[in-house]
Amino acid sequence: SHSINLAVIPGDGIGQEVVAQGLKVLSAVLPQDVKLETEEYDFGAKRYHATGETLTDADLDSLKRHDAILLGAIGDPSVPSGVLERGFLLKLRFAFDHHVNLRPSKLLPGVATPLAGQPEIDFVVVREGTEGPYTGNGGTIRKGTEHEVATEVSVNTAFGVERVVRDAFARAQARPRKKLTLVHKNNVLTFAGHLWTNIFNKVAAEFPEVTTDYLHVDAATIFLVTDPARFDVIVTDNLFGDIITDLAAAVSGGIGVAASGNINPSGEFPSMFEPVHGSAPDIAGQGKADPTATVLSVALLLRHLGYEAEAARVEEAVAADLTERGDSVRTTDQIGDALAARVAS
Amino acid sequence: SHSINLAVIPGDGIGQEVVAQGLKVLSAVLPQDVKLETEEYDFGAKRYHATGETLTDADLDSLKRHDAILLGAIGDPSVPSGVLERGFLLKLRFAFDHHVNLRPSKLLPGVATPLAGQPEIDFVVVREGTEGPYTGNGGTIRKGTEHEVATEVSVNTAFGVERVVRDAFARAQARPRKKLTLVHKNNVLTFAGHLWTNIFNKVAAEFPEVTTDYLHVDAATIFLVTDPARFDVIVTDNLFGDIITDLAAAVSGGIGVAASGNINPSGEFPSMFEPVHGSAPDIAGQGKADPTATVLSVALLLRHLGYEAEAARVEEAVAADLTERGDSVRTTDQIGDALAARVAS
Ligand SMILES: CC(C)[C@H](C(=O)O)[C@@H](O)C(=O)O
Ligand SMILES: CC(C)[C@H](C(=O)O)[C@@H](O)C(=O)O
Repeated sequence: SHSINLAVIPGDGIGQEVVAQGLKVLSAVLPQDVKLETEEYDFGAKRYHATGETLTDADLDSLKRHDAILLGAIGDPSVPSGVLERGFLLKLRFAFDHHVNLRPSKLLPGVATPLAGQPEIDFVVVREGTEGPYTGNGGTIRKGTEHEVATEVSVNTAFGVERVVRDAFARAQARPRKKLTLVHKNNVLTFAGHLWTNIFNKVAAEFPEVTTDYLHVDAATIFLVTDPARFDVIVTDNLFGDIITDLAAAVSGGIGVAASGNINPSGEFPSMFEPVHGSAPDIAGQGKADPTATVLSVALLLRHLGYEAEAARVEEAVAADLTERGDSVRTTDQIGDALAARVAS
Repeated sequence: SHSINLAVIPGDGIGQEVVAQGLKVLSAVLPQDVKLETEEYDFGAKRYHATGETLTDADLDSLKRHDAILLGAIGDPSVPSGVLERGFLLKLRFAFDHHVNLRPSKLLPGVATPLAGQPEIDFVVVREGTEGPYTGNGGTIRKGTEHEVATEVSVNTAFGVERVVRDAFARAQARPRKKLTLVHKNNVLTFAGHLWTNIFNKVAAEFPEVTTDYLHVDAATIFLVTDPARFDVIVTDNLFGDIITDLAAAVSGGIGVAASGNINPSGEFPSMFEPVHGSAPDIAGQGKADPTATVLSVALLLRHLGYEAEAARVEEAVAADLTERGDSVRTTDQIGDALAARVAS
């Protein structure tokens, strides 16, 4: 018999509420003989204010022992911008080498989109998670003076680019349409752009069945609203991936349903699954948050741990719920209950 | 009596066709007593292939003597990515210190948008044009090996940020809604983010009538499709501005109508006006290109040179033409003729 030893990080704002629903659905979908152990961690604004800590070495040691991590949301207006993002979220992604940041976008029938004509949308973005402008390289001189200079260094390595590009090709190969789009800005960011483009073309030769194309990131945003159906798998750098996945979420049902996985494919460290949305402090504690993105992140978690049938059941439950949802107003808890009931039956 | 001494750079692909219409409308709208002198330059792919040159010091000396520059498009698949972008377009923006990159977005009644419900869109993006990740700083080591490292350095100075932020506040102040949104990613790019945010807040104190807010660039892409009406003036860095203005163009009528000005507000160097779209080699030479973006860039050019009434006439002509256009299929030339006729009458 199997077991899942899960680290749970509810975090800030609506994180608490949505994670509770994710766990509810997870418990409901798992076979009886799978033992689910969870350990809750108190990361986020409250702990930061109480202790000044965001994520210590001891925390990392402790988190490392789990099979996977489920995260709600981290971030609060009471904490200066960047402190929790760099000190917790990015620190964890880097420490656990979450280099494949997986963000699927699928517009389900009947789900609201800001786009006219309800286009077909079913693609996945493979965002690099440990390089690019996210490394924290850079600095400031003459801070606060009229001569201040601040730099941000995007770091791109053949090692880091090749592994994520390979992962994306393998995912494209496994999908019916077998299409992979590289998104970058290689006409301006020529150093990083050449590295990405050369490696992309080199790996492409090993995947002759995969159709490839290239788009500048600015042009990609156009197609995401005018012709999202053209996308199957997209691979891109950390910052471009951040930007286009929010846009992708917006056009394919909103960030209320956008899931993500921060994946360490080797399994050396546990992978982390989280909704793309943030802590939404304005609606926290009111039962208004949509837990769907967290539940879909649980599906990604299940698939990552090898529970493919269970992952599919969760996704089908969400699809059915969204399609039948209409204009009904339900609480966070009610949506969680409905999804748990669907996967259990 | 006055005169305009204009440098004209048709460039590649559809650049030739659309610039011809821009000039047609410019001639038609100018009062009889304004002498329009134009000098055409042959920059672009053809010259690069013939001479290896993209933009020489002598070219810059020559361009410098004009009152303004009208550009069609530069870029061709026969030239490696980056050569003309870095060697011509960006070289010119940097050499002439075009630090205010002005990109208005206005959705006119009856104009097609990929968004459902035809939202009200009327905002302008003030994109910084001479800093950020566009400076060409960075490099590559161990090129082509498995140990390659490529960096891109975003350079941000108090001088460069303050002048563009000031320009944006002044523009917001002059508009009815008086609202300015800073777009950045200050929770991740903390060095540059703090510089931008601090200067933005400092200058805000001098413009008490202007309402301000802040959005991360990823969140901004969401609002650009779910609630574009919320924007009035946006100020942002060079790369974020590149990305969100393509998206802004897509939602507000397409890149066929998106105009831009690369402005040197001091007048030390001539400003350059160009459509946001590229050279579109796939439809070049077929009379299919929409010259509207170029004509609207001519309006920005007129306004920059002090011909406010003429600029407004061009914009009104475009608005009327777009509103009445319907599904009619017209050639590039026919649209140019129609607009020229409207501004002349
Ligand atoms: C909160 C922030 C650090 C994060 C990012 O930029 O990656 C978020 O926007 C995301 O997309 O997960
Ligand atoms: C062609 C390219 C250099 C340019 C840019 O990135 O600025 C273009 O995309 C634009 O927006 O004018």
